[in-house]
Amino acid sequence: MTARKTVKDYIRTIVDFPHEGILFRDVTTLFADPRGFRMCVDQLLAPYAGMRIDKVVGLEARGFILGGAVAHQLSTGFVPIRKKGKLPGQTISQAYTLEYGEAVVEVHEDAMQPGETVLVVDDLLATGGTAEAGIRLIERLGAKVIGCAFVVDLPDLGGRDRLEAMGMDVHALCAFDGL
Amino acid sequence: MTARKTVKDYIRTIVDFPHEGILFRDVTTLFADPRGFRMCVDQLLAPYAGMRIDKVVGLEARGFILGGAVAHQLSTGFVPIRKKGKLPGQTISQAYTLEYGEAVVEVHEDAMQPGETVLVVDDLLATGGTAEAGIRLIERLGAKVIGCAFVVDLPDLGGRDRLEAMGMDVHALCAFDGL
Repeated sequence: MTARKTVKDYIRTIVDFPHEGILFRDVTTLFADPRGFRMCVDQLLAPYAGMRIDKVVGLEARGFILGGAVAHQLSTGFVPIRKKGKLPGQTISQAYTLEYGEAVVEVHEDAMQPGETVLVVDDLLATGGTAEAGIRLIERLGAKVIGCAFVVDLPDLGGRDRLEAMGMDVHALCAFDGL
Repeated sequence: MTARKTVKDYIRTIVDFPHEGILFRDVTTLFADPRGFRMCVDQLLAPYAGMRIDKVVGLEARGFILGGAVAHQLSTGFVPIRKKGKLPGQTISQAYTLEYGEAVVEVHEDAMQPGETVLVVDDLLATGGTAEAGIRLIERLGAKVIGCAFVVDLPDLGGRDRLEAMGMDVHALCAFDGL
C-alpha cells in the first residue's frame, strides 16, 4: 500500500531558477492538483480554527492564488499587498532591503480598519523581507496580524526567526533545507 | 427599504490611473468585502453549473485572486498564466500586441493535459489581448476552453467581440461604458 502524498510531495524543485545555484521550490504543481490545492488550503487554516479572521492578506503574486482560496474558504474579504505602483487608490508604502538594493510594497490605506484581525498568506518564506514589510503595513493601518501562513519554509534563510522576533505566529506546511 | 448591493456597486472607480484620462475600475473594494467576494465567485460560476471543469486558469495578477477562489469553490486545480520569465519550469509562450509594443505570456507546458476542460478567469476584459494570448496557450497544450469569465467588461474596447470571434463563450458580471 502506498502512502498518501503530502503537500511537500506535490512541490517540484527546479534547478538553477531564477539563476545558477538556486533550487526553486515550485508550488504550481501543488496548486494544479485538485487534491493538493484543497489539502494545502485546509492545512494552512488548521491552526486558526475558531479564531476570528476579518481579512486575508496575500502577498503578490503567488500569495494571491492562495489568498483568494483561503479567503473564500473562510468567507472573508481578501486584501492584496502589491509591488509599488500597482494599486490604483491611495496607498501607504513600506521599503525593505533585498540582496542587491531595495524594494517597496504597498497597501490601500482603506483596505482594513483599526482593530481588524488579519491572516497573512504566501507560498514561500525565505528571508522574510517581503512578509515583514507587509506586516508593518498592516500594523500601520491599526489592524492586528494573528498569523502568517506559508506553504514552504526555507529555515536556513532566517525568515521564521525574523518574523518570530517581531512577535509573529508563523505556520508553514513543510520545510526544505538550503537555499 | 434599500436594494441589496450588486457586484458592480462594490467596484470603485479611480480617475486618472494609471495615467490621465483613464477611469480605472478597481475590484479590490469588491474582493475586500466578504459578501462581495463570495457573490462574485458564485456569479462567475453560475453559467457553468453542471459542466465538467478540469482546471481553472487565472491571468496574472488579479486573475490569481479570483482564480484561486474559483478553483477552490470547484475543487479543481489552478494554473497560472504569467508574464514572461516568471514561471520556473519548461514553458510555452505567446506574444500579443499592446498599444505601444508587445508583451509575452507563458504557461508551464505540463500544466494541463490534452482533452482537459478549462475555465479562464480574470477581473477585467478590455481589449482582450491578454485573454486571447492565454486561450492560444491553452489550446496549444491541447486543452479546451469552455468559458472565459470576467468581473468587468469594457465593451467599448472590443474584447468581447474579439474573444467571441475566436468561438469563445464570454461571461461578465457587469459592464462599464468608455475606457
